[in-house]
Amino acid sequence: MTETAKPRRLTPKGRATRNRIIEAATELVARHGVAGTGIDEVRAAAGVSGSQLYHYFDSKQALIRAVITRQADAALDAGEPRIGALDSFEALRAWADAAIERQLENECRGDCSLGSLAGELSTSDEESRTDIADGFLRWKALILNGLQAMRDRGELRADTDLDELSFALLTALQGGVLLSQTIRHIQPLEASMNAALAYVRSFAPGARSPGSG
Amino acid sequence: MTETAKPRRLTPKGRATRNRIIEAATELVARHGVAGTGIDEVRAAAGVSGSQLYHYFDSKQALIRAVITRQADAALDAGEPRIGALDSFEALRAWADAAIERQLENECRGDCSLGSLAGELSTSDEESRTDIADGFLRWKALILNGLQAMRDRGELRADTDLDELSFALLTALQGGVLLSQTIRHIQPLEASMNAALAYVRSFAPGARSPGSG
Repeated sequence: MTETAKPRRLTPKGRATRNRIIEAATELVARHGVAGTGIDEVRAAAGVSGSQLYHYFDSKQALIRAVITRQADAALDAGEPRIGALDSFEALRAWADAAIERQLENECRGDCSLGSLAGELSTSDEESRTDIADGFLRWKALILNGLQAMRDRGELRADTDLDELSFALLTALQGGVLLSQTIRHIQPLEASMNAALAYVRSFAPGARSPGSG
Repeated sequence: MTETAKPRRLTPKGRATRNRIIEAATELVARHGVAGTGIDEVRAAAGVSGSQLYHYFDSKQALIRAVITRQADAALDAGEPRIGALDSFEALRAWADAAIERQLENECRGDCSLGSLAGELSTSDEESRTDIADGFLRWKALILNGLQAMRDRGELRADTDLDELSFALLTALQGGVLLSQTIRHIQPLEASMNAALAYVRSFAPGARSPGSG
């Protein structure tokens, strides 16, 4: 990742200003998309001058990359669907429920999640795509860690393909959110998470068919 | 859907010109996204004058809506993952394989599919969002028709929730494509489709656990 904002040089006040700018940009992107968000609107929403904003971000691209980093961190932290320790069936169900709850609270409107940023930027902006890909791969690694712990404890069979299973969970979340936000209904996300979790459960030793429970 | 191009008035030559413009726009959007595609570039790529283009599409918005309609039709027709009759496990597997093949041929680069258009436009453009939602719901209805036929023949259990299952299949495809195009690797799409198909198979009468086969 290239250096976009020289954070080493920032004072506490500078860091606060920089964060305020990123937060304003995140909110605007959630409502209008990246293409629909102008630097001037970010400046006004954050209450900073043009030269202040430029001091922290010398281009819209640099600002958007900071938004991506922030949203990738949020997805892996407490913010987005909680991912503390996805190391039990209950934790995975709670993670899915948190994602569903989040969409319901937002009335399935667009947001500034990593998936939304990917949808808008992956085709047209190679630097952003790389940053978002990094975020997805870190996210997938966290899911995999939880599944690994389950397999180590014998809650998943020894031959479970953890790579495939962790991608299946993350793609279910992303595809479900994409469809739910497009049709503005929670049903696709509920369906995708039910399917993915049933698939995970089917790797428990002696599992019954996920369709029969 | 509003009238964007008055197709009733078009001569065969007019229809051909209009199609050429839509094709040029589709190709440019696949490479640069909607935001990165200018009307002038479409005009040049289609080899038409500005007034000709304006005759068919009085705004970029109108042109993009025509692209959405075209891509929605393509998804349901022979173009995209074939969807002729998704009424057997073999047909569903072939549909998944066609989607995977399509991404491999395109080296998992961005495209102008309904999912990519949704990712870019659902947040910021309400009219486009509605058109894309219509496309997704038609697509889901086609999947549901196939599953219904399977249930009618007793290949899926009588209590199978066809709504949930058809959304699970479509979200798996969309989430898999989104991640594969972002990380530029086929693994997420393969994982998402394997998981979704195993989930469908688990609703066969007397199915074994999808993880155990």
